[in-house]
Amino acid sequence: MEAASALATKALDGNRYALARLISLVEDDSGDARAALRAIYPHTGHAHIIGVTGAPGTGKSTLVNELAKALRAQTTTVGIVAVDPSSPFTGGAMLGDRVRMRDLAGDPGIFIRSMATRGSLGGLARATSDVVKLLDAVGFAVILVETVGAGQAEVDIARTAHTTIVIEAPGMGDEVQALKAGLMEIADVLVVNKADRPGAARTARALELVINLNTTRSQTGDNAWQPPIVQTIALDGTGVAEVLEATAAHRKHLITTGMWARREQVRVETELYNILQQELLGRVIAQAGEEQMQDWVARIVAREVDVYTAVGTIIGK
Amino acid sequence: MEAASALATKALDGNRYALARLISLVEDDSGDARAALRAIYPHTGHAHIIGVTGAPGTGKSTLVNELAKALRAQTTTVGIVAVDPSSPFTGGAMLGDRVRMRDLAGDPGIFIRSMATRGSLGGLARATSDVVKLLDAVGFAVILVETVGAGQAEVDIARTAHTTIVIEAPGMGDEVQALKAGLMEIADVLVVNKADRPGAARTARALELVINLNTTRSQTGDNAWQPPIVQTIALDGTGVAEVLEATAAHRKHLITTGMWARREQVRVETELYNILQQELLGRVIAQAGEEQMQDWVARIVAREVDVYTAVGTIIGK
Repeated sequence: MEAASALATKALDGNRYALARLISLVEDDSGDARAALRAIYPHTGHAHIIGVTGAPGTGKSTLVNELAKALRAQTTTVGIVAVDPSSPFTGGAMLGDRVRMRDLAGDPGIFIRSMATRGSLGGLARATSDVVKLLDAVGFAVILVETVGAGQAEVDIARTAHTTIVIEAPGMGDEVQALKAGLMEIADVLVVNKADRPGAARTARALELVINLNTTRSQTGDNAWQPPIVQTIALDGTGVAEVLEATAAHRKHLITTGMWARREQVRVETELYNILQQELLGRVIAQAGEEQMQDWVARIVAREVDVYTAVGTIIGK
Repeated sequence: MEAASALATKALDGNRYALARLISLVEDDSGDARAALRAIYPHTGHAHIIGVTGAPGTGKSTLVNELAKALRAQTTTVGIVAVDPSSPFTGGAMLGDRVRMRDLAGDPGIFIRSMATRGSLGGLARATSDVVKLLDAVGFAVILVETVGAGQAEVDIARTAHTTIVIEAPGMGDEVQALKAGLMEIADVLVVNKADRPGAARTARALELVINLNTTRSQTGDNAWQPPIVQTIALDGTGVAEVLEATAAHRKHLITTGMWARREQVRVETELYNILQQELLGRVIAQAGEEQMQDWVARIVAREVDVYTAVGTIIGK
């Protein structure tokens, strides 16, 4: 097997096969992958990372595909990372890849990767962030990170983006889903997709009302940006150009206000703390031994000791 | 202010005001709260913890209220913990409490608490788990933990339950939402609520198909349980008794197969590791100092060093 550092050199030279192999190493969190991530890291920081999130059924994947096609028409290179929390049982990620590939395959200016939930949630957020770094380093100008976005986990992943697009669709029940899921605060661009369906105007008005309230109440500089609401019909491309204009305007806003740098800092801090936690736990378990840890679990289950007392004893008061 | 240990004694004696005060301390993760949690922990382990989860718009809160009323009619005591990821802006948690209280207030056999997302996700899961322990210790026989359930985070919270109810509703778009959100694996009881709406039978059939496939493929003892599908109309109480029968049957199944103990072990292990992580990170930050940590963040942002190298240096290779 090729060493990760050799793969990194090839990937930076534009070799897509090496990139795909590296991504697999990163997903498996192999020790070798870290050497590669170290090598590529100085090349990162140039891409515009755009999170795209929304409840199932909003037409998110179709919109992401159309955004990618429109960007390619402008000769902008595009990486797509689709984070799919579907179970391995339903095999959503793999199917999604194949459907997409039919549409966008054979173009070296685009790269698509689906990532399914495996193991811990923290693991998925970390792998997603590392895959974005790889795509950034090898030169993709725009990286679209697609998440289902109905839970805090997906919100956290979307937060690593510079610009977050939140998608709504009319007729998904009585409530505006984004409101319920707490997505309004992270939305930089709001899209009402399936705008040809009844209720689209009502959904847009409901979103506008909330944005206006939000902007009035807000006192931070970040929220000086008023999220535009764009109506789209992703299936025939209507409104897709307007969404791209909105994301470009948001990027400009971030840079001129200094928010670009501030968001980068928050992202790095979160990542640093998450990785620290995982490493520290790994060491404590290695030190105490699996058997000793299972013994603590058994004692807590038996109500001989509570979890906080156990933690205090394991790592010393 | 009263000491947490004194509050714990009063709460164990049935004082609801002391219980509410303790819950607030636990939510704030005050050092004092840990002493109280230690004191009450030996009294835990008797409640049947039931997670109730489903996408927004499925009528989840209404069903939880009806389940609580039906349990009270059997003189079973009920605690409700509603985990609400709504933003503080929309104030969902507080409003929900008031609406519920109108229906269920004045009955000392019921206790309702909403918990909104604040700070980190890990913090919410931890606080939810501790609040459930308090309700368990003071003697509530059934504890209903309600989460929005569309993301991995809510799934993790639901996983602390002995029995998980997943709610669907017809007409929420073309797909079965639970499938998309990866909830099928954690479902012990499936509810198709709003069964008077068109499409309810179709939704139930779709769920049944997946369950049959799942059961056939499965090889573990856990999945020998075939999740029943119950159609309900929570608004008028239809099917609520059947849901309670299903949860009671599941509890019996868990105990006779030994799964009750196995689930408890997994829950304790997860909690132990999460708290260890949080404590270890807190110590490293305290040791290095906030300033030093911010310096690392700045160097990573400047691409002088990558995050894995930084972590290796901070905690020693």
